[in-house]
Amino acid sequence: MTSAVILAVGDELLTGDRRDGNGVWLAQRFAGLGVELLGLHVVRDDPERLAHAIADAAAQAELVVISGGLGPTEDDRTRAAIAAAAGVALEHDAEAWEAVCACMARRDRVPAAGERRQAQVPVGGRSLRNDVGVAPGIATRIGAAEVYAFPGVPREWRAMTEAYVLSGLGGDVTSAEAAVWVAGVPESDVAARLTDAAALDAVAVASYPHDGEVELRLRALGADASARVAAAESEVRARLGPDVFDAPEGGRIEHAVVAALAVRGWEVATAESVTGGLIARMLTRVPGASAVYPLGWVTYATAQKTAQLGVPEALLAEHGVVSAPVAAAMAQGARARAGVHAALATTGTAGPDPLVEAGREPVPPGRVYVALALQGQPTQGLELTLPHPREMVQRLAAVRALDLLRRALVSQSTT
Amino acid sequence: MTSAVILAVGDELLTGDRRDGNGVWLAQRFAGLGVELLGLHVVRDDPERLAHAIADAAAQAELVVISGGLGPTEDDRTRAAIAAAAGVALEHDAEAWEAVCACMARRDRVPAAGERRQAQVPVGGRSLRNDVGVAPGIATRIGAAEVYAFPGVPREWRAMTEAYVLSGLGGDVTSAEAAVWVAGVPESDVAARLTDAAALDAVAVASYPHDGEVELRLRALGADASARVAAAESEVRARLGPDVFDAPEGGRIEHAVVAALAVRGWEVATAESVTGGLIARMLTRVPGASAVYPLGWVTYATAQKTAQLGVPEALLAEHGVVSAPVAAAMAQGARARAGVHAALATTGTAGPDPLVEAGREPVPPGRVYVALALQGQPTQGLELTLPHPREMVQRLAAVRALDLLRRALVSQSTT
Repeated sequence: MTSAVILAVGDELLTGDRRDGNGVWLAQRFAGLGVELLGLHVVRDDPERLAHAIADAAAQAELVVISGGLGPTEDDRTRAAIAAAAGVALEHDAEAWEAVCACMARRDRVPAAGERRQAQVPVGGRSLRNDVGVAPGIATRIGAAEVYAFPGVPREWRAMTEAYVLSGLGGDVTSAEAAVWVAGVPESDVAARLTDAAALDAVAVASYPHDGEVELRLRALGADASARVAAAESEVRARLGPDVFDAPEGGRIEHAVVAALAVRGWEVATAESVTGGLIARMLTRVPGASAVYPLGWVTYATAQKTAQLGVPEALLAEHGVVSAPVAAAMAQGARARAGVHAALATTGTAGPDPLVEAGREPVPPGRVYVALALQGQPTQGLELTLPHPREMVQRLAAVRALDLLRRALVSQSTT
Repeated sequence: MTSAVILAVGDELLTGDRRDGNGVWLAQRFAGLGVELLGLHVVRDDPERLAHAIADAAAQAELVVISGGLGPTEDDRTRAAIAAAAGVALEHDAEAWEAVCACMARRDRVPAAGERRQAQVPVGGRSLRNDVGVAPGIATRIGAAEVYAFPGVPREWRAMTEAYVLSGLGGDVTSAEAAVWVAGVPESDVAARLTDAAALDAVAVASYPHDGEVELRLRALGADASARVAAAESEVRARLGPDVFDAPEGGRIEHAVVAALAVRGWEVATAESVTGGLIARMLTRVPGASAVYPLGWVTYATAQKTAQLGVPEALLAEHGVVSAPVAAAMAQGARARAGVHAALATTGTAGPDPLVEAGREPVPPGRVYVALALQGQPTQGLELTLPHPREMVQRLAAVRALDLLRRALVSQSTT
């Protein structure tokens, strides 16, 4: 297994204002290729500290990849730091300089004096062509380590690590990976239902909660990696059954719902109170949503639930606005008025304050009712008590509502 | 100026699946307090590598703060690594053990055997009480450096770094910071309008685009830091005028809009097509939105713009659904039907495909019309050509719509 260290260079990454994205991206790619990442370091562009960090990384790992500090300004110190860490001088590379000039000429620019430093290479190393931007990359050896440096512009970083680093990896290591997504059940339940699953012993399992959805990642390295991951995935799917959802191209719950509606040629309407438009926003984030989603209401005020959706005033008076009967009436009203196959409705209290209606017990934040009206079927509902804060209540309620529709669509097709 | 290094410990942070958030949070706090952060390192919980990283950090910085690896399992190796880096043994701390047992008792749990390791402290160091969770923190000296370690659970990490590290900083350094937020103009325009602003030479200026909003951060260190930041802030506000918005408690554009409506006792309705519920979702994210936002429509299908908002079919036929007159008719219809002071409407093409209507030129992705109907005033509009992809079009359109309302409310109050 290849070992690696990633260094991201730049003072702006150390103020907390801007986050390193290049390192995290490469870390993810390394994980998929079975590379053992030993460290991901964000360092200042101070020459001595940078040289120290590079030498330290080269002493630990077989592969060191550096992001940033290769531009034409005096703050760009990665070339000099690599040379210092290797104990060699920098030299001018005529071919690299020609490439820099040609690239700038294509943009109608003439290289300034400082630009020449971009063609410098540590003695014994080589310049790497940049097909996406101006500054060339660098490759050299320091001790037993192969050291690469690429510009920090994300587009250039990704293209060059693909071309010069990632393309050469993985040949000697067989690795496999699969993701299984779950909705409608808490992460702790998922974990409990997977204990003692023998097929999972042969893979690495990681579970990541995403505000109401849970992502399970199964990874394996070695000769029969694919077979072990496939066995683990079947075991997970068998144990979790309909709690697993499948969305096109690794999408989320809203992608699964849009795809399931599109397959059936169905349309859904939404009538939102506590989720305040979030369900609509999630559905319309998906390209092609217009084929399945013609209309939604955000009836945030109680009177508008009556005016727009026809929720009877007597029902509101009897049960209160945050109640299962009101959610059901909202969904039924939305379905009828939009003239569609299905309608989702939500009502609840997002907080931070409890809902106070005259003559009723206050409704605490986190209490939510979801309803689904489906053509030719009884209206279904969920009563939820969700954890605060406000945005978490809204997000979890929206995911549970979409998941209720997803489950109804799946069971439709199998019965 | 105090120098610092942050270490985040954990193999799960090196697969790219989970990002270090603790380090970035502390980096931001350090920047505000004038601490010079030399490096932010994510390292494996391998005992030797971890000890090496801690020793290396202690040799470079006056302050080393470590996140994670303090729990009760065998994978929690931070205590042992600190002791190894300091060249001392671990010893049992009876008082810390008592605190661990008491904390678990409050949760009706009995400490398991492994739990005892949480009460271990390097000889010469001290255990730090955790008021938010179980595992105590650690403080010790290694050479000239003060080394701290706190649990990686974000809530515990934040509370303990506040209590033991941040509270003791800043006394010897005077620092000041201000943020100015701008909407409705591109980041490059903002930069151009601030060139040659003399007051900005005396502070550090960083500009961060947030999908349609631009955040300007002004920072200074030293004796007259506050005065210099205040002078820079006035200069920025004078130059950018009404493009600057002020939201309560550092909020975003939707917070500014909700506050401006609440002050006037006004209500707004929304009629969204291309933004698909995002404006509604942004408004209802703000606590207290119900006082100013009774009702919204997501009329995604063209026929629903007529059915719900009364947009004349003749207007749709004459101008096409993505047009300024249709946006205006949507806003006017929404205002009248909701019976409110103001209404925002959007129509456009988010992509990825162009909009094709029979007998018309296709409308390319990114074309958006926004309209604002205000009681007693002519309807206002914006024609926008926004950069793809889909989510960017939706997000930028929603921000521009909210900003149109914000500007109208501000000019109302000053005329």
